[in-house]
Amino acid sequence: MADYSELLAQLIAEFGKLPGVGPKTAERFAFHLLKGPREGAEKLARAILDTVERMRRCSRCNNISERDPCAICSDPKRDASILCVVEQPSDVAALERPKVHRGLYYVLMGVLSPLDGVTPEALGMDRLLKRIKAGGVREVIIATNPSTEGETTAVYLAKVIPPLGAKVSRIACGIPVGSGLGYVDEATLREALKGRRELTS
Amino acid sequence: MADYSELLAQLIAEFGKLPGVGPKTAERFAFHLLKGPREGAEKLARAILDTVERMRRCSRCNNISERDPCAICSDPKRDASILCVVEQPSDVAALERPKVHRGLYYVLMGVLSPLDGVTPEALGMDRLLKRIKAGGVREVIIATNPSTEGETTAVYLAKVIPPLGAKVSRIACGIPVGSGLGYVDEATLREALKGRRELTS
Repeated sequence: MADYSELLAQLIAEFGKLPGVGPKTAERFAFHLLKGPREGAEKLARAILDTVERMRRCSRCNNISERDPCAICSDPKRDASILCVVEQPSDVAALERPKVHRGLYYVLMGVLSPLDGVTPEALGMDRLLKRIKAGGVREVIIATNPSTEGETTAVYLAKVIPPLGAKVSRIACGIPVGSGLGYVDEATLREALKGRRELTS
Repeated sequence: MADYSELLAQLIAEFGKLPGVGPKTAERFAFHLLKGPREGAEKLARAILDTVERMRRCSRCNNISERDPCAICSDPKRDASILCVVEQPSDVAALERPKVHRGLYYVLMGVLSPLDGVTPEALGMDRLLKRIKAGGVREVIIATNPSTEGETTAVYLAKVIPPLGAKVSRIACGIPVGSGLGYVDEATLREALKGRRELTS
């Protein structure tokens, strides 16, 4: 790093903590803000402060929201008997885009990773289980990522949920739409074959 | 975009104004800040506000700095007779890294682009010329980018500076160190050939 003023170095360091942002990109961000009108930079800072100040956790689904319960949990048109379990708030945002899931969500805020000390207790899994136990949930769709930890979490939930009276399902793994067999890895192809469905005419 | 709260949508929009940040990346940044401890987000916002509030233009070289004159302009060990002209503050930062240039800088804060209305007057070129005219500058190194506008600016300066009593030079274009002939474009190869230097043993 060049002999930046401490202020600028601090700003670059803070930008560098954002995911996927290296020192070069952080530097570009900082210079971009300094080059533009001061109001632009102030708007970004203000948006950050407002958001972290006013966003909270929804007490029902754990998602971040301005309101508690969140807009999804308090929507009477959604089907409360289908609960989709995801890892992160951004997963809810992603799943809401195709407008297919009309049930509710539960955000784990993580995945099971016993090696890193993330046990079911650490993840607060009992809140989810208590909710299912209370009744009204017919199906739990497990939409954790198809990673080792995501699968571990899915296997765990598939074991503990059915005795509580709900069906457990897992989102499908396979070849992304628009991609091709030659572009996906072996593990995906294996899942695509395992998950094959009968075609009926 | 999913049905985000207005706050979150606003934060994502502000992040999306940073260079090279699309909606997906902006969303990742926002969720990253919301997931982490609140202090992390506040530190970033504070760094932005502090920086835009306290950084100003150096009255000598135009660079952004906490002090006026900036650390480079006020360093008595630097050679005031060699002036390096660059487009942006980040170019100063880049040129300071190899610790080769021991002279001073002048930051144009842009490049000539007559088609976009950026004339020498609009760019405040008279400040640079006045400084050279005042004497003490032996050589002006033009380090604008090797783009059409950067070249236009270099050609302009190479015309107006020599009558004021300073020599004008241009940084070399060519094949980046560590790269290969097969990896650079035609224009670079052309410049690399034109800029060849005699080897003496």
